[in-house]
Amino acid sequence: MTQATEMLRTYPADLGGVDQQALARCIDACFECAQACTACADACLSEENVAELVKCVRTNLDCADICDTTGRVLSRHTGYDANLTRATLEACAAACKACGDACTEHAGMHEHCRVCAEACRRCEEACRELINALG
Amino acid sequence: MTQATEMLRTYPADLGGVDQQALARCIDACFECAQACTACADACLSEENVAELVKCVRTNLDCADICDTTGRVLSRHTGYDANLTRATLEACAAACKACGDACTEHAGMHEHCRVCAEACRRCEEACRELINALG
Amino acid sequence: MTQATEMLRTYPADLGGVDQQALARCIDACFECAQACTACADACLSEENVAELVKCVRTNLDCADICDTTGRVLSRHTGYDANLTRATLEACAAACKACGDACTEHAGMHEHCRVCAEACRRCEEACRELINALG
Amino acid sequence: MTQATEMLRTYPADLGGVDQQALARCIDACFECAQACTACADACLSEENVAELVKCVRTNLDCADICDTTGRVLSRHTGYDANLTRATLEACAAACKACGDACTEHAGMHEHCRVCAEACRRCEEACRELINALG
Repeated sequence: MTQATEMLRTYPADLGGVDQQALARCIDACFECAQACTACADACLSEENVAELVKCVRTNLDCADICDTTGRVLSRHTGYDANLTRATLEACAAACKACGDACTEHAGMHEHCRVCAEACRRCEEACRELINALG
Repeated sequence: MTQATEMLRTYPADLGGVDQQALARCIDACFECAQACTACADACLSEENVAELVKCVRTNLDCADICDTTGRVLSRHTGYDANLTRATLEACAAACKACGDACTEHAGMHEHCRVCAEACRRCEEACRELINALG
Repeated sequence: MTQATEMLRTYPADLGGVDQQALARCIDACFECAQACTACADACLSEENVAELVKCVRTNLDCADICDTTGRVLSRHTGYDANLTRATLEACAAACKACGDACTEHAGMHEHCRVCAEACRRCEEACRELINALG
Repeated sequence: MTQATEMLRTYPADLGGVDQQALARCIDACFECAQACTACADACLSEENVAELVKCVRTNLDCADICDTTGRVLSRHTGYDANLTRATLEACAAACKACGDACTEHAGMHEHCRVCAEACRRCEEACRELINALG
């Protein structure tokens, strides 16, 4: 059981009908993607061809920030606001799409970009599933 | 001249036609709103009627995180991505709207909610202006 | 293998002699603690006796922010700075100690505080182990 | 009057004897430094000699995260914890020192590094003044 699942289980009030498995999966995916993107930006900085990776670094940094914030917003349930949740998930899916695409371009050459691209794809998918589950 | 304006001025490459005054105003509004929301959440915790303010606290926390992330995304110009910028600004405007509404409900009773609601309104407006300026 | 371990494995340059297992454990513990503290603050807001939990909420929020930042700093290896790493870990250990203590006071009554206190203890321990490993 | 000063003024409980001017100055300096460091990291990515600036970028990113977290911790007053505040300020001063030094090395060549170094120096000084004011 992940930390997010454990914390969902102990929430003392009604979680309001949101699919808890999709929610927990998305929280986990957000924090994992934030970590991967933070580390990938730094790994790019240590590559000899860093000058060719600057767009990748920038997208990594945006994606890390947005995933982190999305993981936080999804970890809160008190006074739930569907509009705000949906807008945040849309921004997160857009960031993960952009970062997954940028990293995929370098995935054959840089192993960290390949691993990070996979984290971005998982997080994008988890965001879209949760958007659909919100109705 | 604010820090954001000064940093925009020193950016070494092309800023790509974005309205720099609208951009600087939005960056400043995001960080000011993040500070106001962080402080307002804490001020609510010190009110005797905190039990009536829990939705306000939660919305403050979401708004602080989203404004902070938006201020960071807007402070980056390398490898600019209009889709990602727009989705982030939409989430920020939604958060500021929700938080401004929540704080306004208590603005007559709690001065920190009144001040915070004003910061949220300014930031929401700055986000919408920038969305329009992006075309 | 966790995301942090996978990203450490793919870092393209020398990791400089830091104990990689202790490092990966601490990164994981930081992000798990950040999630637990964010969720615990929110869970406290939904408790009927929220007025008695305000110090717990505040400490949760500090701990979430500091753990998140520490997890980010530890995910970077380029241009490593031992002094900065140590000062960050000391702040994180202090935050986890304070939050673990605050949550422990309510652990018998609130399950989320019990689970969060455990995450804080694990993270505090992981920080202290890494401080020792830094020499 | 800055946002931080305005929010301090509206805090509904006792601020506990901390020098409010030093506190407000430090909160403002933290958020300004976070913005400057975020923008400077990005500006470095757009420089032709980015390969020589990777340590500067990394230190910028650490400093942005730590200043942002410190600004948040200082914006909370409920359940004040002097130990945690001091440890956070020490980490922030260390980050600002490291980043100010890194940026100063390139200040003659890159205007954004010069402006960012000044923000780091102001923030380091504000942190040290506040540490002293805490007693």
